[in-house]
Amino acid sequence: MENLTQKLLKTHLVSGKMVKGEPISIKIDQTLTQDATGTMAYMQFEAMGVKQVKTELSVSYVDHNTLQSGYMNADDHAYLQSVASKYGIYFSKAGNGICHQVHLERFAKPGKTLIGSDSHTPTSSAIGCLAIGAGGLDVAKAMAGIPYRLTMPEIVEVRLHGRLNHGVSSKDIILELLRKLSVKGGIGRIFEYTGDALEHLSVYQRATITNMGAELGATTSIFPSDEITREFLKRQGREKDYVELKADPGATYDDVVEIHLDTLVPLAACPNSPDAIKTIQELEGTKVDQVAIGSCTNSGYEDMMKAAAILKGKTIAPNVSLVVSPGSRQVLLKLIESGALATFIHAGARILESACGPCIGMGQSPKSDGISLRTFNRNFYGRSGTLSAGIYLVSPEVAAASAIQGVISDPSKLEYEDQFEKEPVIIDDSLIYAPSKDPESVEIVRGPNIKPIPVNTPMPDQLEKKVVIKLGNNITTDHIAPAGAKVLPYRSNIEKLSTFVFENNKEHFDQVCKENHGGIIVAKENYGQGSSREHAALAPMYLGIKAVICCSFARIHKANLINFGILPLTFEDPEDYESIEDMDDLILDSIHDLYQNRTLEVYNVTKDKYFKVHCDCTDEDLDMIMAGGALNYIRNQQGTF
Amino acid sequence: MENLTQKLLKTHLVSGKMVKGEPISIKIDQTLTQDATGTMAYMQFEAMGVKQVKTELSVSYVDHNTLQSGYMNADDHAYLQSVASKYGIYFSKAGNGICHQVHLERFAKPGKTLIGSDSHTPTSSAIGCLAIGAGGLDVAKAMAGIPYRLTMPEIVEVRLHGRLNHGVSSKDIILELLRKLSVKGGIGRIFEYTGDALEHLSVYQRATITNMGAELGATTSIFPSDEITREFLKRQGREKDYVELKADPGATYDDVVEIHLDTLVPLAACPNSPDAIKTIQELEGTKVDQVAIGSCTNSGYEDMMKAAAILKGKTIAPNVSLVVSPGSRQVLLKLIESGALATFIHAGARILESACGPCIGMGQSPKSDGISLRTFNRNFYGRSGTLSAGIYLVSPEVAAASAIQGVISDPSKLEYEDQFEKEPVIIDDSLIYAPSKDPESVEIVRGPNIKPIPVNTPMPDQLEKKVVIKLGNNITTDHIAPAGAKVLPYRSNIEKLSTFVFENNKEHFDQVCKENHGGIIVAKENYGQGSSREHAALAPMYLGIKAVICCSFARIHKANLINFGILPLTFEDPEDYESIEDMDDLILDSIHDLYQNRTLEVYNVTKDKYFKVHCDCTDEDLDMIMAGGALNYIRNQQGTF
Repeated sequence: MENLTQKLLKTHLVSGKMVKGEPISIKIDQTLTQDATGTMAYMQFEAMGVKQVKTELSVSYVDHNTLQSGYMNADDHAYLQSVASKYGIYFSKAGNGICHQVHLERFAKPGKTLIGSDSHTPTSSAIGCLAIGAGGLDVAKAMAGIPYRLTMPEIVEVRLHGRLNHGVSSKDIILELLRKLSVKGGIGRIFEYTGDALEHLSVYQRATITNMGAELGATTSIFPSDEITREFLKRQGREKDYVELKADPGATYDDVVEIHLDTLVPLAACPNSPDAIKTIQELEGTKVDQVAIGSCTNSGYEDMMKAAAILKGKTIAPNVSLVVSPGSRQVLLKLIESGALATFIHAGARILESACGPCIGMGQSPKSDGISLRTFNRNFYGRSGTLSAGIYLVSPEVAAASAIQGVISDPSKLEYEDQFEKEPVIIDDSLIYAPSKDPESVEIVRGPNIKPIPVNTPMPDQLEKKVVIKLGNNITTDHIAPAGAKVLPYRSNIEKLSTFVFENNKEHFDQVCKENHGGIIVAKENYGQGSSREHAALAPMYLGIKAVICCSFARIHKANLINFGILPLTFEDPEDYESIEDMDDLILDSIHDLYQNRTLEVYNVTKDKYFKVHCDCTDEDLDMIMAGGALNYIRNQQGTF
Repeated sequence: MENLTQKLLKTHLVSGKMVKGEPISIKIDQTLTQDATGTMAYMQFEAMGVKQVKTELSVSYVDHNTLQSGYMNADDHAYLQSVASKYGIYFSKAGNGICHQVHLERFAKPGKTLIGSDSHTPTSSAIGCLAIGAGGLDVAKAMAGIPYRLTMPEIVEVRLHGRLNHGVSSKDIILELLRKLSVKGGIGRIFEYTGDALEHLSVYQRATITNMGAELGATTSIFPSDEITREFLKRQGREKDYVELKADPGATYDDVVEIHLDTLVPLAACPNSPDAIKTIQELEGTKVDQVAIGSCTNSGYEDMMKAAAILKGKTIAPNVSLVVSPGSRQVLLKLIESGALATFIHAGARILESACGPCIGMGQSPKSDGISLRTFNRNFYGRSGTLSAGIYLVSPEVAAASAIQGVISDPSKLEYEDQFEKEPVIIDDSLIYAPSKDPESVEIVRGPNIKPIPVNTPMPDQLEKKVVIKLGNNITTDHIAPAGAKVLPYRSNIEKLSTFVFENNKEHFDQVCKENHGGIIVAKENYGQGSSREHAALAPMYLGIKAVICCSFARIHKANLINFGILPLTFEDPEDYESIEDMDDLILDSIHDLYQNRTLEVYNVTKDKYFKVHCDCTDEDLDMIMAGGALNYIRNQQGTF
């Protein structure tokens, strides 16, 4: 009697025991990348010297850097297109849509494993595909045929009962889970959804939940593959990809969470964390300056149609700017056909490209102190591009109702049509390019924005470094390596990117690191949550960061630190966090002894005080760290590449 | 027997004689602003202390800074919306479209005068409205009821004969004129279009010509108001705005240019000037990386439909990124209804907002060394955001044909439908907000990006300053105060903006000015061509520039220099230009004697050499310069404001 997660892991297990907390490795069937993390991932793949990808399917999407304020983005796109063509990767051109939306529609398959260099890769788990977000190097390794390593997670059953009331959305299910469990509630866990409510949840509703499961810190979230999945795949012309997949009757789980959908009300995540949940009733009447509908969380056809149903025949309030970004060309074409696009425009919406857009801070920054309601998945401080803005995460229904009223409003009070999931779709894959049949002839296009990947130095046995920054709880990768229109174009240029590290936490952090020949980062719980960007490890590595000491790590970021040769250490006694101050001088001795004993004694020279840290790493992890990162490690193993 | 221009000037003449070269002033009926020049214009209007605009109609458009990469743009939009509401100005919200497109469709009237703080304001002259681009301060003065001053221009008849062949566009008419006359060919001139060909030219075709007449340096370009105009206005629900207006039979002109349309072939303006014309035949086969259809020049319904007709059932070449930005919501809605938007998307186009977008460097910068075909009006160096890119200006037909082939291609070889001008339009003015009926109650919203306007100091009688930069021919306002995604958001913040002045011509120009306590600019012919942005005078003024010495000025920029108290001087002997070097030390003596004698002797201290300069200014111009700009001058006159 196995649950669904166990079944999927078992059929892909390459090494290790499926015992909670044990290291395992699994075969990866599919990979995806997006442009903001992809350039680095493909440069790493190139460095591995593999001639063609070894996965069943790999897709390279362009959806992040689509504003193109300078040559950098188009340089990246040209590089990605040429690499894809040469190495056997499908290329989804800018304009084709958001990676998770397109992958779900056109490529994800029940029963397959997928890793993607984007933390919202679990979106595809909505159809019983085991989809996990990872750092770019891990995706590069998977493309090279190297199994994906992870710690066997706890498997949590989320039992959904009943049916959503009118005006309540699947967004409210995941917001309710965030309220219950917090942004740390999913660390080391996979959430497996079951229950009688599933028969009322469409694939897009499920995808909103698996997508935003990333905000719980979960390894992934997964739904069974059932009749609803089959119908979805049939509408996509992919019925042949369907297999039924579900937990065995009586399967057990490490933990259970129950939610009665009929008790849910419309919710919002308040600034600046996805788990700062309030009911819309509590917030009703708050004046709104901007409403944004879109992102990989809520830009599917159904989401858009529900918003359009509310906006039909109405006009937005004069104080509101409404922006709409459909998730894919498929969605956009269907919105045109159904009349919904015209509805949006008549209502006063600004139609943006089918891309990540404002969700990743690429444009549409609110005004100073502005209130912005967004159907997105993250409202981290500064991510919108306006530090003083207040970002609320809501369902498309709340967004649309509030755009009309000009204040936060409850859609359950409105009458509107809300059943759209069974409409036929418009399939057009003409912006997805198959790889070249003559790969030898393809020249890689390397514009001036494509800089070589910096490589770390081996880890010495003793380190004496300053605490170059001391941070608090839930530091996101957006804090470490900011997104947004100013910084994102430099994702292929680590030297430039490193000048923005912690720019909102400490002035001239890069200078502090340079003057002190690198250093150590100290933080509290859940360090590195959020986006999968390995740049949050790479750029600090470039600045000479050799270790991070905190109370706990977010999963993907910890893997990225190991990949780039930075020691991930946790306080044995969390109280020791308090005794450390910014710019304290620390000595880590006998680091190579970590193989024998996963603890180290750290001497705080400034405070003349010792404290102990733990290093939760496998021997292979330590090999990579000691070698100065995975690329060095692989190179040492292979002799050269 | 009067020509049309004389009739319009005569009915609006306030002072002066309508004799070529004489100063005149005219009453202004309508004004328009866009957001990149508007914030400054309205701050100046506010400073004048007028309670409500005194024009028949003033409209404030938001179409430039629509990417919103940071709080700055949304701060500007909020300021503009509140100012409009308070002072009796209509406000066209972001998303409603490009100012010139919307103004032509919804507001411009035959027989009226219009000035706008955008050099492409002459677009509206396509329907017999005398529309002129001006600096923001001149627009502010017009809103305050102050007549607009200009030099009585030469009036040139452009006689159009015959009919365009299939595949040849009205864009090719204006490119042909640019080929004949160059970017200096229109200085001090108004082009009045006549001839038998007019009966075959729709309002949108005429608007492409009047719009891009700005590239000739013309004061404006004008078409008569005839049956085609009446039908256009009727389709816009504005038949009541129609009056017939044309030159009297036998009216005379200062000069005549004749073009036989049936002899024209598809043309392109090659990098980096709108007058670097070649035939498409000469360029055929050149590989293209990007194609952009849109901008105020070619984003009307007919333009879009012709491009769609060529793209129908086709797919763009893999090496091409195609972006389409419809000119207004009206156009966008009609594209949806007609199926053309779906055609674009199926062909692989990325649909951008109805806004200026890539034409003003707001996004879609090509890759390094990329070739970009654009239906725009300007291809100045660097304006695309990619210094190394090659920008070609072409018709929508050439753009569409080339997007499919992936190389520059001739549309006249293709069969496609090209008659769309008589289709009914979809009118929706719900994003145009009428001003408040209770203006006293409206609070102006002033976010942190709205900085006070800097004010100049009075002109001393003697100046000793260094030549802080020596420039060549045809320096554009894009050279002086660059546009684009990096700089445009600071149009309300002159201190910040001034750090970008001449950034592509001289490193650290702002520092050079600061270290030398300001200075003098030296240039050759047609200094200040292009955009009307007064920031190209304001920012240098902020840096302490007190005079510009060149061989000739572009009209709007010269007016802006005067408005901000900078001396516009021309070499009496153009040969003297050669004798001056960068950083030479110049002394201008007895400047106040300019009232008596419009010449000055300048002493080049470094070269120990004297040369003479001319100052072609009215007494009132000199009053403004001596006072340190128009705002000081008005303040001195009024006592206070």
